[in-house]
Amino acid sequence: MDYQSIINDISDEVSSLLRAGKVADYIPALAGVNPEQFAMTLTLFDGTQYSVGQADTLFSIQSISKVFSFTLALKLYRKELYKRMGVEPSGNPFNSLVQLEKEQGKPRNPFINAGAINVADALISHYGDEERAFREVLEFIQDVSDDKTIESNKVVASSEMEHGYRNLALANFMKSFNNLDNSPQKAVETYSKYCSVEMNTKMLSRAMLYLANDGIDPITGRVYITESQSKRINAVMLTCGHYDASGDFAFNVGLPGKSGVGGGIVAVVPKLMGIAVFSPGLNLQGNSLVGTKALELFTTKTKLSIF
Amino acid sequence: MDYQSIINDISDEVSSLLRAGKVADYIPALAGVNPEQFAMTLTLFDGTQYSVGQADTLFSIQSISKVFSFTLALKLYRKELYKRMGVEPSGNPFNSLVQLEKEQGKPRNPFINAGAINVADALISHYGDEERAFREVLEFIQDVSDDKTIESNKVVASSEMEHGYRNLALANFMKSFNNLDNSPQKAVETYSKYCSVEMNTKMLSRAMLYLANDGIDPITGRVYITESQSKRINAVMLTCGHYDASGDFAFNVGLPGKSGVGGGIVAVVPKLMGIAVFSPGLNLQGNSLVGTKALELFTTKTKLSIF
Amino acid sequence: MDYQSIINDISDEVSSLLRAGKVADYIPALAGVNPEQFAMTLTLFDGTQYSVGQADTLFSIQSISKVFSFTLALKLYRKELYKRMGVEPSGNPFNSLVQLEKEQGKPRNPFINAGAINVADALISHYGDEERAFREVLEFIQDVSDDKTIESNKVVASSEMEHGYRNLALANFMKSFNNLDNSPQKAVETYSKYCSVEMNTKMLSRAMLYLANDGIDPITGRVYITESQSKRINAVMLTCGHYDASGDFAFNVGLPGKSGVGGGIVAVVPKLMGIAVFSPGLNLQGNSLVGTKALELFTTKTKLSIF
Amino acid sequence: MDYQSIINDISDEVSSLLRAGKVADYIPALAGVNPEQFAMTLTLFDGTQYSVGQADTLFSIQSISKVFSFTLALKLYRKELYKRMGVEPSGNPFNSLVQLEKEQGKPRNPFINAGAINVADALISHYGDEERAFREVLEFIQDVSDDKTIESNKVVASSEMEHGYRNLALANFMKSFNNLDNSPQKAVETYSKYCSVEMNTKMLSRAMLYLANDGIDPITGRVYITESQSKRINAVMLTCGHYDASGDFAFNVGLPGKSGVGGGIVAVVPKLMGIAVFSPGLNLQGNSLVGTKALELFTTKTKLSIF
Repeated sequence: MDYQSIINDISDEVSSLLRAGKVADYIPALAGVNPEQFAMTLTLFDGTQYSVGQADTLFSIQSISKVFSFTLALKLYRKELYKRMGVEPSGNPFNSLVQLEKEQGKPRNPFINAGAINVADALISHYGDEERAFREVLEFIQDVSDDKTIESNKVVASSEMEHGYRNLALANFMKSFNNLDNSPQKAVETYSKYCSVEMNTKMLSRAMLYLANDGIDPITGRVYITESQSKRINAVMLTCGHYDASGDFAFNVGLPGKSGVGGGIVAVVPKLMGIAVFSPGLNLQGNSLVGTKALELFTTKTKLSIF
Repeated sequence: MDYQSIINDISDEVSSLLRAGKVADYIPALAGVNPEQFAMTLTLFDGTQYSVGQADTLFSIQSISKVFSFTLALKLYRKELYKRMGVEPSGNPFNSLVQLEKEQGKPRNPFINAGAINVADALISHYGDEERAFREVLEFIQDVSDDKTIESNKVVASSEMEHGYRNLALANFMKSFNNLDNSPQKAVETYSKYCSVEMNTKMLSRAMLYLANDGIDPITGRVYITESQSKRINAVMLTCGHYDASGDFAFNVGLPGKSGVGGGIVAVVPKLMGIAVFSPGLNLQGNSLVGTKALELFTTKTKLSIF
Repeated sequence: MDYQSIINDISDEVSSLLRAGKVADYIPALAGVNPEQFAMTLTLFDGTQYSVGQADTLFSIQSISKVFSFTLALKLYRKELYKRMGVEPSGNPFNSLVQLEKEQGKPRNPFINAGAINVADALISHYGDEERAFREVLEFIQDVSDDKTIESNKVVASSEMEHGYRNLALANFMKSFNNLDNSPQKAVETYSKYCSVEMNTKMLSRAMLYLANDGIDPITGRVYITESQSKRINAVMLTCGHYDASGDFAFNVGLPGKSGVGGGIVAVVPKLMGIAVFSPGLNLQGNSLVGTKALELFTTKTKLSIF
Repeated sequence: MDYQSIINDISDEVSSLLRAGKVADYIPALAGVNPEQFAMTLTLFDGTQYSVGQADTLFSIQSISKVFSFTLALKLYRKELYKRMGVEPSGNPFNSLVQLEKEQGKPRNPFINAGAINVADALISHYGDEERAFREVLEFIQDVSDDKTIESNKVVASSEMEHGYRNLALANFMKSFNNLDNSPQKAVETYSKYCSVEMNTKMLSRAMLYLANDGIDPITGRVYITESQSKRINAVMLTCGHYDASGDFAFNVGLPGKSGVGGGIVAVVPKLMGIAVFSPGLNLQGNSLVGTKALELFTTKTKLSIF
């Protein structure tokens, strides 16, 4: 397939939509981003990359980091992790407390904020301290991206904390149900730090290869997780990766994927490639509007849906 | 792969669990079913079938019928259907009214009861009357199963109506939001009639072939729906097919599937086969306990997960 | 106190608000009512009445009928009635299904719709049939009003049924929890019939005397209920009489009261008088906007709050 | 009336229930309290007191403090206070986050925890700092009790903070909706300090006199609040004073009242007296089981219900 032509066509088709979304404005660092950006990169198992748009522009990966922290936690805790959280779609917005109350402080899945903060808490417990937990997640991201230059943006991270009352509410709430080991403040800070990691679509699509290849990096041969764990992470991305628009994403795109409020979305074509798109304007559910559309066009044109 | 050995092994492995589930007891016709039954059938694209257990025993397909009625409605209404309902996981039990209130009478998806009753209503509107709508669903089931002997059990259907107050509540509720064309009574009756269709695992696994083959029956060549529609039905099965255990099913089994309270589950391996299992004991979420386990063993042994 | 001057002043003060509310429009019979009407009547224990405005104009009493049907049911069932429903404020709109689901089909109190329909069901069970249950409620209203001309408006009652899908949803829902004896249709019809009773403020304020006087009509001496029952009905009016504005009404008016969507409100000054106001424009919670304001002015001017 | 005989009788009648409740066990300081205690005091307008049981035993007033802090805040902010919170019954447990999410961070009323923490925040803003806000509440309590010995128990207060994650969740949640001026930590600490004030039933019943007498202390003549404010505080006590058992309390007792998890309940008979009861065993809604029963017996025997 002529992937370059396909993504060029996609770039043309979505260009008229670049102003339709709304950039995340809950922190100044994100609110200042130019909305009229678009990038898309495909990375094949041999390392070949096809890119269009601003594929070298770094952006805040935000919730996409949840894929990496969940991978680490699943590797370390295996089935024990499910004592802390489930793997069900929530049917509610990403930061809802309602379900957490009904379900006694146990988050529905690792991709809603409560679940991701709980994952951060599990990593702090395992690694012994907050700083180490953050470093391990960052190094894991550098490893799967094969790029040691990747870093977290400290201004964004501290800005997140200044506006992180909702996340602190979630963390304190879980703590009140004895479903958090460490202090709520620490868990949220660690989580905020790796949310503030900055990457571009080339790095992110490359970072998805281990999930496209049953847990093994197809280029370096490094084994990160088991085949079963890899398939399960993909399953959770499919059912829970886009909050209360996960069903729509499965329906319209048909690939395991995860979005971030910074405008990025990663997706996996099992056995074939990693994909990343970037466009900062968000739809009503908080996912990149143009990014979602680009992925929908991609599976329509290539028939690469998993269904 | 030696499918016969695999399903024989599965049958052995699940035998100790046959008493662990609880048979549906909300109507006498279901409550009287012997819980210690198990059957599993795989049907390949050339018609070859592999079976184990009571694969000739007919059972009530119940909510599995929602796959067939949704197919018909999607074919007839295409995108118009989404004015009536969404395609998001509900995160709630199958017969919950809470979400329906919050979302102004628009069901989350076609596989929760409210959505399926709404599909029945759409079919009544299209076909002009209740009886015709039921006959069309039944004939569609006979067509995709290539078996004209399949019928609905009238005793079960009328028993459903006698205990169908919850479904009538859902239908009246949607009607109060102007999201039902016909009388609530008629919509629920039509729905109940095709829920009471009786099939065995041989018939059901054969009936899934059109969804495994992008909308076309691989044996007869009949085109039922478009490739895109077929993939989307599979996506909805994956994200919403098992109510508030859909995430678990995606996570543990990794195939599009749909369960019924009569103890059946159907599943689809895209490009390869249709599957049906039967065992009447249900787990807490109302899905066949042994059937779910059997499918989990199947994808573990064959690695045929879509992820 | 010069009650006539006080209510004349109130009438002047509220006149500028007569267009601020919104007339109920869910059925044609109510939607056609002229919004710029106002009436207020006080009835003392010796029968003296003070009126202002259209105090002879009949209007649909709607949910005010719940006070009378609850009185009858409490008299007949005593504590047994609380097996069917509670006496707690709901904190939700009058026709919500959410709480009913959470609380297993047991309505919060007799003044939300689900509770009132359940009361109707209890009366049908006691009196043996639907028509008799309605006649008994009507005769009770005639008795406490000392006026045999009071009747239900059949056009309004049948119009209610045509648009009563939400009430049928509530009734079917309770039936599904085995918390309804008779058919949902019958319970809702009986309830709708006495909601459609027509009275004016003279009749309604007179009808409240038994609740102002510990269960005994101070004019005729007839004993309707016990002192304890009377106090408890007043307590439920105070905590639950205005749906999710009950707290506001207690806070601003400070009297037990009950509103109806037809624009009427009744209130009780224990040991002293019955009050009725009428003005069809409703506030956002579905209570008479001007009627609520008039009662607030009344207790401010007279200091007759129970607090 | 022979009040002493009446409360002696009540003490006899409730004695068999002293083991039926369950002492609050969320902090060690409360968990260690002997459950088999009972005290009841009535204080008339001339200062006469009638007591039975351990009326000199100090206990943690806990949520009863919300009456005093709300009085101060209402006096200082008047109608402005309702921009921060409502006066509606919540229909939910005292520490629920569900409603707070639905209603955008605005607590239903000042007596649920979220509302009371918000009141503490308002007091900190007015007085300029946390310590001063606490001192003002304490001095107000000393004033209305006419007893300068009353103090907060520091061990209890710090123990509250150690187990106060749920309250911190509520405070952070309100902060995320911009409905909190100060740091969540400070608001919860201030609130916890005055929750830990210790009083006995003699002090508490005396402290209620200003609410029984339209805002004026009938003994000292001091004017604390206006008549209208006093009536409104009583109204909120009646509709919201016992969380999701407020309707039951209004129904069975018929007096404005407020309970605390330490086992105390205060109540007001307008124009006549203040009442306090104490018994540490709680019912399922978190209110003193024996205390509630004693108040129910009191209004049954004296007919002093406000209805």
